Amino acid sequence: MTGYFDHIDPIKFEGSDSDNPLAFKYYDPKKVVMGKTIEEHLRVAVCYWHTFCWDGADVFGGGPFNRPWHGGKNDQAAADAKLDAAFDFFDRLGQPFFCFHDVDVMAEAETPKEHVENFAQIVDKIEAKMAQHSTKLLWGTANLFSHPRYMAGAATNPNPDVTAFAALQVQQCLEATHKFGGAGYVLWGGREGYDTILNTNVGQEMQQLGRFLSMVVEHKHKIGFKGDIWIEPKPHEPTKHQYDRDVGTVFGFLKEYGLENEVGVNIEPNHATLAGNSFEHEVEMANAFGIFGSIDFNRGDPQNGWDTDQFPNDLRETTLALYYILKGGGFKNGGSNFDAKVRRQSCDAEDLFYGHIGGMDLLARALINAAEMIENDELQAFKDARYAGWKSGSGAKVLSGNMTLEGFAAEALRDNASPKPVSGRQEKLENYISNHVK
Amino acid sequence: MTGYFDHIDPIKFEGSDSDNPLAFKYYDPKKVVMGKTIEEHLRVAVCYWHTFCWDGADVFGGGPFNRPWHGGKNDQAAADAKLDAAFDFFDRLGQPFFCFHDVDVMAEAETPKEHVENFAQIVDKIEAKMAQHSTKLLWGTANLFSHPRYMAGAATNPNPDVTAFAALQVQQCLEATHKFGGAGYVLWGGREGYDTILNTNVGQEMQQLGRFLSMVVEHKHKIGFKGDIWIEPKPHEPTKHQYDRDVGTVFGFLKEYGLENEVGVNIEPNHATLAGNSFEHEVEMANAFGIFGSIDFNRGDPQNGWDTDQFPNDLRETTLALYYILKGGGFKNGGSNFDAKVRRQSCDAEDLFYGHIGGMDLLARALINAAEMIENDELQAFKDARYAGWKSGSGAKVLSGNMTLEGFAAEALRDNASPKPVSGRQEKLENYISNHVK
Amino acid sequence: MTGYFDHIDPIKFEGSDSDNPLAFKYYDPKKVVMGKTIEEHLRVAVCYWHTFCWDGADVFGGGPFNRPWHGGKNDQAAADAKLDAAFDFFDRLGQPFFCFHDVDVMAEAETPKEHVENFAQIVDKIEAKMAQHSTKLLWGTANLFSHPRYMAGAATNPNPDVTAFAALQVQQCLEATHKFGGAGYVLWGGREGYDTILNTNVGQEMQQLGRFLSMVVEHKHKIGFKGDIWIEPKPHEPTKHQYDRDVGTVFGFLKEYGLENEVGVNIEPNHATLAGNSFEHEVEMANAFGIFGSIDFNRGDPQNGWDTDQFPNDLRETTLALYYILKGGGFKNGGSNFDAKVRRQSCDAEDLFYGHIGGMDLLARALINAAEMIENDELQAFKDARYAGWKSGSGAKVLSGNMTLEGFAAEALRDNASPKPVSGRQEKLENYISNHVK
Amino acid sequence: MTGYFDHIDPIKFEGSDSDNPLAFKYYDPKKVVMGKTIEEHLRVAVCYWHTFCWDGADVFGGGPFNRPWHGGKNDQAAADAKLDAAFDFFDRLGQPFFCFHDVDVMAEAETPKEHVENFAQIVDKIEAKMAQHSTKLLWGTANLFSHPRYMAGAATNPNPDVTAFAALQVQQCLEATHKFGGAGYVLWGGREGYDTILNTNVGQEMQQLGRFLSMVVEHKHKIGFKGDIWIEPKPHEPTKHQYDRDVGTVFGFLKEYGLENEVGVNIEPNHATLAGNSFEHEVEMANAFGIFGSIDFNRGDPQNGWDTDQFPNDLRETTLALYYILKGGGFKNGGSNFDAKVRRQSCDAEDLFYGHIGGMDLLARALINAAEMIENDELQAFKDARYAGWKSGSGAKVLSGNMTLEGFAAEALRDNASPKPVSGRQEKLENYISNHVK
Repeated sequence: MTGYFDHIDPIKFEGSDSDNPLAFKYYDPKKVVMGKTIEEHLRVAVCYWHTFCWDGADVFGGGPFNRPWHGGKNDQAAADAKLDAAFDFFDRLGQPFFCFHDVDVMAEAETPKEHVENFAQIVDKIEAKMAQHSTKLLWGTANLFSHPRYMAGAATNPNPDVTAFAALQVQQCLEATHKFGGAGYVLWGGREGYDTILNTNVGQEMQQLGRFLSMVVEHKHKIGFKGDIWIEPKPHEPTKHQYDRDVGTVFGFLKEYGLENEVGVNIEPNHATLAGNSFEHEVEMANAFGIFGSIDFNRGDPQNGWDTDQFPNDLRETTLALYYILKGGGFKNGGSNFDAKVRRQSCDAEDLFYGHIGGMDLLARALINAAEMIENDELQAFKDARYAGWKSGSGAKVLSGNMTLEGFAAEALRDNASPKPVSGRQEKLENYISNHVK
Repeated sequence: MTGYFDHIDPIKFEGSDSDNPLAFKYYDPKKVVMGKTIEEHLRVAVCYWHTFCWDGADVFGGGPFNRPWHGGKNDQAAADAKLDAAFDFFDRLGQPFFCFHDVDVMAEAETPKEHVENFAQIVDKIEAKMAQHSTKLLWGTANLFSHPRYMAGAATNPNPDVTAFAALQVQQCLEATHKFGGAGYVLWGGREGYDTILNTNVGQEMQQLGRFLSMVVEHKHKIGFKGDIWIEPKPHEPTKHQYDRDVGTVFGFLKEYGLENEVGVNIEPNHATLAGNSFEHEVEMANAFGIFGSIDFNRGDPQNGWDTDQFPNDLRETTLALYYILKGGGFKNGGSNFDAKVRRQSCDAEDLFYGHIGGMDLLARALINAAEMIENDELQAFKDARYAGWKSGSGAKVLSGNMTLEGFAAEALRDNASPKPVSGRQEKLENYISNHVK
Repeated sequence: MTGYFDHIDPIKFEGSDSDNPLAFKYYDPKKVVMGKTIEEHLRVAVCYWHTFCWDGADVFGGGPFNRPWHGGKNDQAAADAKLDAAFDFFDRLGQPFFCFHDVDVMAEAETPKEHVENFAQIVDKIEAKMAQHSTKLLWGTANLFSHPRYMAGAATNPNPDVTAFAALQVQQCLEATHKFGGAGYVLWGGREGYDTILNTNVGQEMQQLGRFLSMVVEHKHKIGFKGDIWIEPKPHEPTKHQYDRDVGTVFGFLKEYGLENEVGVNIEPNHATLAGNSFEHEVEMANAFGIFGSIDFNRGDPQNGWDTDQFPNDLRETTLALYYILKGGGFKNGGSNFDAKVRRQSCDAEDLFYGHIGGMDLLARALINAAEMIENDELQAFKDARYAGWKSGSGAKVLSGNMTLEGFAAEALRDNASPKPVSGRQEKLENYISNHVK
Repeated sequence: MTGYFDHIDPIKFEGSDSDNPLAFKYYDPKKVVMGKTIEEHLRVAVCYWHTFCWDGADVFGGGPFNRPWHGGKNDQAAADAKLDAAFDFFDRLGQPFFCFHDVDVMAEAETPKEHVENFAQIVDKIEAKMAQHSTKLLWGTANLFSHPRYMAGAATNPNPDVTAFAALQVQQCLEATHKFGGAGYVLWGGREGYDTILNTNVGQEMQQLGRFLSMVVEHKHKIGFKGDIWIEPKPHEPTKHQYDRDVGTVFGFLKEYGLENEVGVNIEPNHATLAGNSFEHEVEMANAFGIFGSIDFNRGDPQNGWDTDQFPNDLRETTLALYYILKGGGFKNGGSNFDAKVRRQSCDAEDLFYGHIGGMDLLARALINAAEMIENDELQAFKDARYAGWKSGSGAKVLSGNMTLEGFAAEALRDNASPKPVSGRQEKLENYISNHVK
């Protein structure tokens, strides 16, 4: 049988002088950086949905991709063909991980029973595939947003029967993720929000979401899944408003339900920017709150206000993000999933390779840059000096809770000085970054 | 002595048929709505800063306002003239409250001692003024962002000496607010964030902010201030990023420091929209978290990405916001402060009246509309029916924490049904609102 | 045969006291305003695409609408069923016009010949329908963006064979529009732009677009079509950048190809705001350039950065837009097409009525408000006084081209005065608007 | 006398291995790229306003910079001190050009006569300075937006006396620019727009602006100025709407007044992005219209919706912009002016050097990258192949105006083919760029 990717040779590392567009120029998986290989640091994953399921359709037009498994009904035969193609793609690209939604991999199902049966069928086949190939599972997730039954939310649906269906999907998918040895499990609440606040009981919906998440955590422990659970923040789209808006909002939500030590975040740059935050900000906030988990690497378009999910190509932004990730200890169970899709006009099999090669080369360059910044960590040194005053004296007392407003105010009055402005040296630090982005 | 506002007669309610631009058409302070007068419901305040301090300057040009107290140094004489004009304005407009920053009202000071002395002088004069006039204090606040010493933050400054100066200002201003019988005290962290994440220790700065806020709360209790403490969320500007981004983020922050029962929010529509949230969303989130406090009424420009602080004129938005405020129990200590400024071209004394009259008429119309919506509350009835399924059975068990993921999933499988989509009736509900916006 | 809309009685005007959600409260078609009926002023149209073609799918999920003609292939039988339903809907709603794309109404076609044949079949059936019903055609348009062949543009495609196919579609659709007695013909260049500038010859593509439009204008004259040709500006989506960005950009384009007296604009509020302009701005710019044509009424969501195409419900914005439209002489061939779709959760037949009723009531209220503003036109009077200085003297000479920079400068030097700022009275004028929005 | 910059040694090129933050790492002025030195290609200018006039104030706080010439009145002594410092800075930085507004350099003036006198004084001093130093003038411009007299516009003011004052300023400044041997003259219409459309006669204001610009062009010819005249597009801020929105809009305006061969554009990246366009888009549009002039290099913050005017540091964006600039023939009279300011916290003299060094290094790297891309121009080759079909046959006839819609349509029908989608290879081309950004 002829495979869809047969005409693409396995992608090799050829170095930055190569002008072979189907080779890696920077992603040298075995190269050691800060004591680990690039492959071990980045833990790159290919996502099933954009890469194998999407047919190129957008809101204004039909899909031009015409993959062999597209066109007809998404039945078991189509699911099987897709699975074969997926692992063939993984073999040729050589990345260590993949990610999936339940509905990405299975034959379409309408009822709960069908769902369980169809999912079980493909789970066995995936297990068999994984036994024959080296690609591992980074994380799994249940799609609780595409079927019309979820149009008003899954955990936050006004109808608890819909939430029960969602519970079934999550149970099945979490257990499959466990069986596959996945490192994590993700919940993106694509419809957990509202299209209009007019018909929405915001307070109760947040409570439904909190309880649902708690049940998922309980089930994880019950089945002995040792991987992590991550929420993926996004501010809106398809909803007008999504409850898991950004890292700060998710942290408040986790605190409210006592889950801040159980659940982390899967950060997506395009979601960060839609929420009005920079990518590095979201990483650093997650570090500060102790909830950093994994990354869905991609990029948005700064002139377009929707989730474009493009392959990342901003070396400066990615270098900074990886700097903060490494400073936080690097990926543990998490990794670098490309939640990115080739453009609608990129309709050929090789375009899928160009997208991933560009992304992996970018991550490798950024990792090397970030590691170099950490070796001789001028940013850290600058900050250590800048905040030194808080290490002792009244500053330290404030931080440890041993100072009153009155007492602190009295010191200002006693010293009677107006502290002089001290340069924040932003441009100097920005130049330092520029000189490390290469 | 001739006053700046002498040529403006006191503003009277003349009803909607009046075409006197210097009369109220809807703001009839003694009209009773839902058992309280409009005045009691709205608790309208004039803000000192935009109304009396701002000279019309913007980033690209100098100030055309030339109020009599502008132009020279902001010394005690200027502060006194401004105070006289302010209470004259209040008398003519007839609103029940005002709001102020410490530096708005006092002669400029450079050192802590000067600050305490100059502030004390004006505090006595304000107290005397208040004894002679009927206008009360809604809330006070310390300006911890205009002086260059605060350019890198106040509570979050890398230099604890700056934070000590801030502690002094807050202590003084909180005590003055208490002395004036203020209903609340506000903290807006205009520089509590960063211009660049490169020079910023995000985790420590959030800790500084949390401790500072805790000290303020402790001091409030110590001095016996019975008013509320409110944080004012804003996502950025002047900083690139401000920690108190929006209501959801502030709630997470309060939870982290155990302050969610001590501190509420002062919501500003223009800050809400800069953060990517609708005004009514922020009100409803504050209701859901139990932290609703007060409103800084204004509006932004949907085509301009900065804080334009214009007087509100969107009747639909304001009606909805007041509907949610009333549903949450209405203002208690909080009120309707106009954190709004006339445009730079509106350089005459009467323009200050046009701005406030327009705002007060709008609030009154919106209040009457909202009350009418509540009398026969179709939104509530619709939502009650929509979420009825969660009142009993498995839904109720989920909400009360008596259901497992497995158990809930098993029910879906047992029923084996794919719930049918039910219309959310968004357009019908929007028409209902339209018909009440009048 | 049972019709999809059988359970909805024809919509009647019942006045603002009615609480029948399936009645008009303001849209009284025969009411006379400024010498014409509301129906004649507004020229309301229902659009075929959102109302009858869309199945409720969005980028993140499938369609919940399940209209009887959905689900299977879009063959002749489906097209016929849709046509029956459409005119049944028109009869029940009672609006005077409709609008359509070629592919909305016809059975799906793949080749040019199929296209011509399938389109011809439905054209005959539409003609027959129109003979039996009172609904007229406001405008037609060819869909040059949904089929994958147009993924890189139609007029601006790198492959002229694609452009030839587009020429065929436009020729056919323009001729059908002529045959139906349509008042206009619209071109929206949904893919006339680029996904990436990297692969795009921007200069040549604009030339292709200019020549294509010129050919359309020539053909219009050749066949004797007396209606108007309108371009519909939009800045982006689905493309990253669309050449017909906004009214100002389109005007420059028309000037470049000498078409400014041949082609006008069909303005859409949601496209205006995506481009960073207010709706009223775009109307007033079109008036200033003399290219105002028609309106695609809808609204976007100010917190969401994509084309949400919601039914309009902002009375202030719509009042202002209609004020400027009336000031420009009102609609001639153009009208008020609802390029608006009910939300994905609004999956019932009646939701289509709620959407249109809300929109029509809003337009009627806005029209009445706008007419009242024009009767005693304070805005105009204010502007006349404000610019009076340009009517005579040097101002008039400047405008007529009879003044040099030197001469004008010499006058300033001679008078040696620094003109004093004069209030622009923005808040007073905004209050005036508020008082007329009711 | 001690100079403000005395402690900073002249900035030298030390190469990319240097870690001296006060040295150039890439900006080697005499290095030859594509036949010209880097200095000749880039024509770097320092702007007077941000670098020497701004005191660090923003909308929310006062200025922390305290340059020696700040603090008091802007009289002749202050202007002289500023001039000395400016040329001292130029000598130490070593860039070839500067740019200025009239009011940046002169002692403050209130009346026309004062303006002429004060400006004349400093013009003589600048001339003397330029005779002693090597720095040349890139362009001059009159500030028609900061003084309150211009609050409602300069050319577009409702009061022609204000416009006459503006004419005087432009005449004086254009003549001074000519005297200094400036390469260009810029008009940025910072207040040529509106704060509210309600009080604005949009049509007349655009006519005023068109006539004013025509008078400037006539005067240029009259005095024999051989430099270029450039308009600087910006969409808004400080106004709600500015007429010169973006390159496309400016082109339409120039066409309307027959000035498209007389006037070009000075493009600013931060203005481009505020208008919803990418920087490279604006450059390429200017190339396509034949109106490319000069660049005001800077960057905005993608999370902040105002003009942040930061020093550029995005190597990818700058590489692409320079690629398109070089493809369009490179700078002629135009150059690379840094319309960029150090952050408010960057309050030291050396911060001004860090900002400019970072910017100049970035431009040099980007230039070298762009030149390498042009040497073996794969983007051009890809586009040539992609559009080859338009070189001959019907495509060519369409472009030359020798084809009708009917004739073109007939060809589609005759061939009866549905053209197959061809990949646009976006990801491959993006990778190509990534590999050249180094």
